[in-house]
Amino acid sequence: MVDLMARDGAADERDAPIPVTLESVPGGITAPLGFQSAAVSCGIKARSGALDLAILAAGERVAAAGLFTTNLAQAAPVLVSRQHLAHAGGMARAVVVNSGCANACTGEQGLRDAREMARLTAEAIGCAPEDVLVASTGVIGVALPMHKVADGIRRCAAALSRDAAADTARAIMTTDPFPKEHAVAATTAGGRFVVGGIAKGSGMIEPNMATMLGFLTTDASVPPILLRRALRDAARDTFNAITVDGECSTNDSLFALASGSSGVVIDERSYPALLEALRAVSRELAVGIVRGGEGATKVVAVSVSGARTEEDARRIARTIANSPLVKTAVHGADPNWGRIVAAAGRAGVTFDINRTTVHVGGVLLFEHGLPHDDRAPLAAAHLQQSDIRIEVNIGAGGTAAATIWTCDLSAEYVRINGEYRT
Amino acid sequence: MVDLMARDGAADERDAPIPVTLESVPGGITAPLGFQSAAVSCGIKARSGALDLAILAAGERVAAAGLFTTNLAQAAPVLVSRQHLAHAGGMARAVVVNSGCANACTGEQGLRDAREMARLTAEAIGCAPEDVLVASTGVIGVALPMHKVADGIRRCAAALSRDAAADTARAIMTTDPFPKEHAVAATTAGGRFVVGGIAKGSGMIEPNMATMLGFLTTDASVPPILLRRALRDAARDTFNAITVDGECSTNDSLFALASGSSGVVIDERSYPALLEALRAVSRELAVGIVRGGEGATKVVAVSVSGARTEEDARRIARTIANSPLVKTAVHGADPNWGRIVAAAGRAGVTFDINRTTVHVGGVLLFEHGLPHDDRAPLAAAHLQQSDIRIEVNIGAGGTAAATIWTCDLSAEYVRINGEYRT
Repeated sequence: MVDLMARDGAADERDAPIPVTLESVPGGITAPLGFQSAAVSCGIKARSGALDLAILAAGERVAAAGLFTTNLAQAAPVLVSRQHLAHAGGMARAVVVNSGCANACTGEQGLRDAREMARLTAEAIGCAPEDVLVASTGVIGVALPMHKVADGIRRCAAALSRDAAADTARAIMTTDPFPKEHAVAATTAGGRFVVGGIAKGSGMIEPNMATMLGFLTTDASVPPILLRRALRDAARDTFNAITVDGECSTNDSLFALASGSSGVVIDERSYPALLEALRAVSRELAVGIVRGGEGATKVVAVSVSGARTEEDARRIARTIANSPLVKTAVHGADPNWGRIVAAAGRAGVTFDINRTTVHVGGVLLFEHGLPHDDRAPLAAAHLQQSDIRIEVNIGAGGTAAATIWTCDLSAEYVRINGEYRT
Repeated sequence: MVDLMARDGAADERDAPIPVTLESVPGGITAPLGFQSAAVSCGIKARSGALDLAILAAGERVAAAGLFTTNLAQAAPVLVSRQHLAHAGGMARAVVVNSGCANACTGEQGLRDAREMARLTAEAIGCAPEDVLVASTGVIGVALPMHKVADGIRRCAAALSRDAAADTARAIMTTDPFPKEHAVAATTAGGRFVVGGIAKGSGMIEPNMATMLGFLTTDASVPPILLRRALRDAARDTFNAITVDGECSTNDSLFALASGSSGVVIDERSYPALLEALRAVSRELAVGIVRGGEGATKVVAVSVSGARTEEDARRIARTIANSPLVKTAVHGADPNWGRIVAAAGRAGVTFDINRTTVHVGGVLLFEHGLPHDDRAPLAAAHLQQSDIRIEVNIGAGGTAAATIWTCDLSAEYVRINGEYRT
């Protein structure tokens, strides 16, 4: 094991990856063995009876990894979870999460409150406070109602079970129109393990309380260093490849916990199987976030190929995906190749427009620097659907590609975000 | 003069800049002596009688400078104008411009058409084709109706006068809700000269035909190399400091011509006077573009200070100005400091949120990492107005600052850009 960890980053070339088959299974975040969860309504959200606090707990200290917002303005729970992960050396026992209040821009009091959430959870389930990770989502600049939170934590800890996954997925929602949970079973020569997860997110920030949170569990046995790498690798093409409005919140957090209860041990050879399973769950959850994006009526997969580097491809795909003109065109079912070409052209990557092709829904709309406007009606028909494909090959002589998922931009987005807070 | 040009870039420290006073004057693009213009309707635009072709001409070859879109997809008139400016060594006699068709993504035919526009203009006014600059704005991917264009050029050339400035400003409009023209007289110890200009732009690209074009004239005598520097310096804080939707078009062009007819010669000492006059006209035109932005109901000046470099300040200001959440909040008169802080925090510049202050309309809403929500109503009242000020001091120990102008994001923007082209 020590050897494997030392080789982190490069699989031994003599060891071919073992094959894996995936199948969807029910059970969400507690589909993997070794996890329990609970969710309660403790009055943080204004709406009476709305679930707003949850705990996810493993039966013992397990491997854990986290990815956090890159925003300079980091909320108290983000700062505390980072500290706890570092202190506990990539191990954790539980995650406590609330919705309705982000505990962001709350100063020293906010840090004390986030630590108190961890301490109360630790006390209730019997572990060290540093073994508890904390997440919050909701309005920012407002202090947590700690007496309500404390009551909620005690009730959650007493109610932990393997049957509360659906409620747990609901408890982390804010403006999300629907809960997002998914689980897959992965079968390899080395055995069968399960990956489960829940996520929330809709736009990107308060006051529409739209931070992105994601929690992933697996019953595979994974060394912390491999789990961290797997989380980072899985997020790259999933949670980090979606955009609703290009914003990034103060509270974005993604956690993974590995219980090892399946008995399947992940090493360099089986790493690709773990990654594939994590990626499958993450993609389902991430695309679910886009589908539930504020005002969204369509999911758009923007794929860029023919690039020299994946980073180039991703940068162009992201610029297209965040272009308000492309997003409004998709909303209006307008096969507007011109906006796609212009967005690609301002992404900061050098390529030749005359070697570039643009397909919308598989229909070639632009090549050799010229449009095929006669094919616009075919592409327009595709744009009437709810799953849109935009494909751009920049013909830069490379084989690198990347996909970014986004949604359309509707008047409803403006309505949701333009209403005065009070 | 040769000496001055060799020292381009650094004023001699022994020579203090001479004082200048500016006053607005009528006359727009032909307010400076030595220029004539004309505008006609030649049928490029669908709407009958709409002005869609114009010529601006100097009495002789004069100093000229140009700035162009940084988009990789550059329209034929941009390519031709760049070539002509380079070929003629920073001199030009005239500009020919049409609206209604951008002559972009039109391949080899487009290049031939743009060159033909220059040739026809040169023939009609009596100069070399390389002395004519070309600009186009309108739908892309469609060829120019050259017989109509040729007819329009001949009629324009025959109608050149000093009384057609207002029509010329109208002839370059596409979705612009109003024409944009401005002129100032600059008085210095060395004499009096005039700077005039027109501009168009509303969103950023077809099919709403919203390229940015700007034309500036002055009757000061300016060496081409100083004129180029002045245009670049003036644009930095004006035309390059505005954003409607973060998009950049295939056709964006900004030209300056200096006739010398006033007899006032610009050298290093009087350069600041020229720059100040160019900047005043450019700012009025640029802010006019924002005020007429697609769906805009408010102009927002986002100022960032306390930065280590102007580039840092500009980057943060631009990220705030392009944030859909900030723009919808302004639209809804929501004093949402959280969205401003979060946008600043993801701009890619390192600073300490706890040293950052946010003012909206002069009202301090955020400092020491905490909000002043009690002051929100005061800021909300400011946000009801049509000229909004957002000021962020990032407290990074520097004195660098920058301002970016933007507009709010309304449901009307989505409606304008989401309607199917046909």
